[in-house]
Amino acid sequence: MRNFANRFPSLSFLSITAAILLVAFQSAVAASPEETAAKLAQQAIDTSLALEITTDLTTEIGPRLYGSASEKRAVQWAMKRFERYGFDKVWSEPFPVERGWERGLETAAITSPAPQNLVITALGGSVATPLEGIEAEIALFKTIADLLAQPEGSLTGKIAVVTQPMGIGEYGKTAGPIRSAGPSEAASRGAVAFLMRSAGTDNDRMAHTGGTSYRSGVPRIPAAALSVPDAQQLDRLSERADSIRIKIVLTPRDLGTVTSQNVIAEITGSEKPEEIVLLGAHIDSWDLGTGAIDDGAGVGIVMAASKLIRDLPQRPKRTLRVVLFGAEEIGIVGGRFYAESHKAELPNHIIAAEADAGQGPVHTFNIGVGNPLEPTLSTIRDALKPLGVQAGRAKSRGGPDIGPLSEVDVPVVGLDMFTEDYFDLHHTANDTIDKIKPERINQSAAVYVAFAYLATELGGYYRAQP
Amino acid sequence: MRNFANRFPSLSFLSITAAILLVAFQSAVAASPEETAAKLAQQAIDTSLALEITTDLTTEIGPRLYGSASEKRAVQWAMKRFERYGFDKVWSEPFPVERGWERGLETAAITSPAPQNLVITALGGSVATPLEGIEAEIALFKTIADLLAQPEGSLTGKIAVVTQPMGIGEYGKTAGPIRSAGPSEAASRGAVAFLMRSAGTDNDRMAHTGGTSYRSGVPRIPAAALSVPDAQQLDRLSERADSIRIKIVLTPRDLGTVTSQNVIAEITGSEKPEEIVLLGAHIDSWDLGTGAIDDGAGVGIVMAASKLIRDLPQRPKRTLRVVLFGAEEIGIVGGRFYAESHKAELPNHIIAAEADAGQGPVHTFNIGVGNPLEPTLSTIRDALKPLGVQAGRAKSRGGPDIGPLSEVDVPVVGLDMFTEDYFDLHHTANDTIDKIKPERINQSAAVYVAFAYLATELGGYYRAQP
Repeated sequence: MRNFANRFPSLSFLSITAAILLVAFQSAVAASPEETAAKLAQQAIDTSLALEITTDLTTEIGPRLYGSASEKRAVQWAMKRFERYGFDKVWSEPFPVERGWERGLETAAITSPAPQNLVITALGGSVATPLEGIEAEIALFKTIADLLAQPEGSLTGKIAVVTQPMGIGEYGKTAGPIRSAGPSEAASRGAVAFLMRSAGTDNDRMAHTGGTSYRSGVPRIPAAALSVPDAQQLDRLSERADSIRIKIVLTPRDLGTVTSQNVIAEITGSEKPEEIVLLGAHIDSWDLGTGAIDDGAGVGIVMAASKLIRDLPQRPKRTLRVVLFGAEEIGIVGGRFYAESHKAELPNHIIAAEADAGQGPVHTFNIGVGNPLEPTLSTIRDALKPLGVQAGRAKSRGGPDIGPLSEVDVPVVGLDMFTEDYFDLHHTANDTIDKIKPERINQSAAVYVAFAYLATELGGYYRAQP
Repeated sequence: MRNFANRFPSLSFLSITAAILLVAFQSAVAASPEETAAKLAQQAIDTSLALEITTDLTTEIGPRLYGSASEKRAVQWAMKRFERYGFDKVWSEPFPVERGWERGLETAAITSPAPQNLVITALGGSVATPLEGIEAEIALFKTIADLLAQPEGSLTGKIAVVTQPMGIGEYGKTAGPIRSAGPSEAASRGAVAFLMRSAGTDNDRMAHTGGTSYRSGVPRIPAAALSVPDAQQLDRLSERADSIRIKIVLTPRDLGTVTSQNVIAEITGSEKPEEIVLLGAHIDSWDLGTGAIDDGAGVGIVMAASKLIRDLPQRPKRTLRVVLFGAEEIGIVGGRFYAESHKAELPNHIIAAEADAGQGPVHTFNIGVGNPLEPTLSTIRDALKPLGVQAGRAKSRGGPDIGPLSEVDVPVVGLDMFTEDYFDLHHTANDTIDKIKPERINQSAAVYVAFAYLATELGGYYRAQP
């Protein structure tokens, strides 16, 4: 209607008349919850609010590393916005993060046989090299299994390089055994530094960061990711040269224990205020990009969805609680803290969903509750179909930050997103707002608002029957 | 035939028999020049030689900045390769480059109101900032015209930022007035540093370098390019903040006069050795990527084309000369030097073509000679049609390095390539071999070999009639 009126301004009087009649009609015949959900979904698309919020966050704040001043600014930004939107309660809950860390300079180069720069980025939590860097011969392994097959001491004095590619769908296989465990595995065999091919599916000259961890009792060695083309370059060079030497300089700083926060905002339920429907996303991001797809988009989606519900003439029956988790990137610290500190009220958590897989679109509704045939969930499933969301058969864990809730039997659902291009940008400098397409993020917001509204309005608890 | 035999190994005897019969037939009936050109083109595609050469160059040497040790290594690499290919003469011609330069660290950040890192890269030839950097308020201009409209002194103490986008086909409009002339225009109005939106068509977080120049009598200020998303970020922030402050650190070094070289390799003509058909490309590259599309691909294309001609049982009638120019990127220094130092033999240059627009494919044959209806050129034009090359109507200047030849009436042709994605990668760290598609570069090599072979075999001089 808005576009139509814009194109034909002379019709605006007619449009207004029609709108008045429509309102009169709607007042006379109360809309069903499904009709209201469909209307909210359409508003999410028409207003492009999720994209607007994500644009504001990534522009006005930028990157939001756990424990940083920027993450704190983002928390203030989000609280102000929720207050402006008229939420009934808005607060933050601080918690400590043990592994405070700040990136420094990061450079690398092949020094022989073919001197050239390499694009790398430190893995989150990596120790620094000496200021003058580390220069050593590399030991290149095409897979992490090849490295693990090496005997103790066999990498003494070398830079271990793992060039195992990450295919689509192989993030877990890469982030865990290579990015997280790889540095200590290399160090335990004598390596002085660790390089991995980025956990990414692109072929841009962009390295993908992400958290690593050190095993106790093993020397902590500097650890970084190479961009995919750089890893391929080393693969090619290793077929042509007996020995390759690399120099690495990394100057990150260990900040010890730092403080992060979860932001919590509520629309108090009109009939059952003690019953909570939770929408989550995470406010922190890696520091290289501006955290647009990870997880500015998620923040935009759940803030937009909840704002549209707040704008309804009446509060929903149950309480809608939005949680923007802090310090997700370094081990779901905010998610774990929430599950622990809200333990007493978790029985009142009716259901939870999270948006932390990029911009969407949402393609599948997976259910992670005890009774997936529960009638309300079937109603929601049917209501999401017109938005392009199919019924899934997997048991969902919901999302990273609500994983700890799922573990203690809070009912969760997965509004699963298209992620085939997510790991092209994930954890890189390229994760910026220009990569987000309005039609994708807005469909996601439409699905989340429809889900959240119906979950606050319909049915009962979705827990396993005792 | 090869693929066919591979799929049905039992047919290989039959294939070999057929091949023998074919050779016998070909020996009995001498192939026409057009038939040989078509055969050479097919070989360029079947062998994938252009891609192999480009891969070797970009892997074994990497980036090849004018005057650098790497450019010198590339020259040795190319000469050895031409010798291995059995060229009749291979030599290099050194020349001075006044503006030797080496990149250093390059970092930038918004310091207020929303602290965040910016991705920048120094423009080639830029002076350094002080080691501690320059921090100042920015004056943002959406177009270079807006900056030029400012009065003298109006930018005193500020960092001038030009965020004018570069559309497809607008490289000249951007590289000249903004990248080259922009820093002195800003300095003459009092600016302390200059930032521009990259001359690129991508939206990656990659800054595009490229040469700048300073006007005499104006202070030389540090000059760098922002990645496209960073320039867009500043556009958005400038709509929300009264004042934006940026800190820039650039530590490039001025190396004074350095030495570059042109590499020249010849197949001596069997009938008219004094008549020269010239194929050009440039051996130098910017330092951020490995110079795959700019201009490793061109090197691969002309080396492959000439190697296939060298492998014919008979030398072509005229001399085929391949020139790999040095120091193209900082002002076509090698191309100008060649035109000047070979002045005496330029009347013997029958025709010249260059490959310096990426991987192709070649779509249009444009003619830059006095008589575009010359029958030999019509023959060549017809011979290129089956390769997907259409007849063009523009008067070609040939290419950057042979531009100086064209200016003094050496006949040139333009084998014009598809370049709609060229400026996505051009002058960035992303210019690496993985971006080159075999079918694209091999089609280009097929076109160049067909052109070069026919130009060495057919007709006469293509000059304007006196």
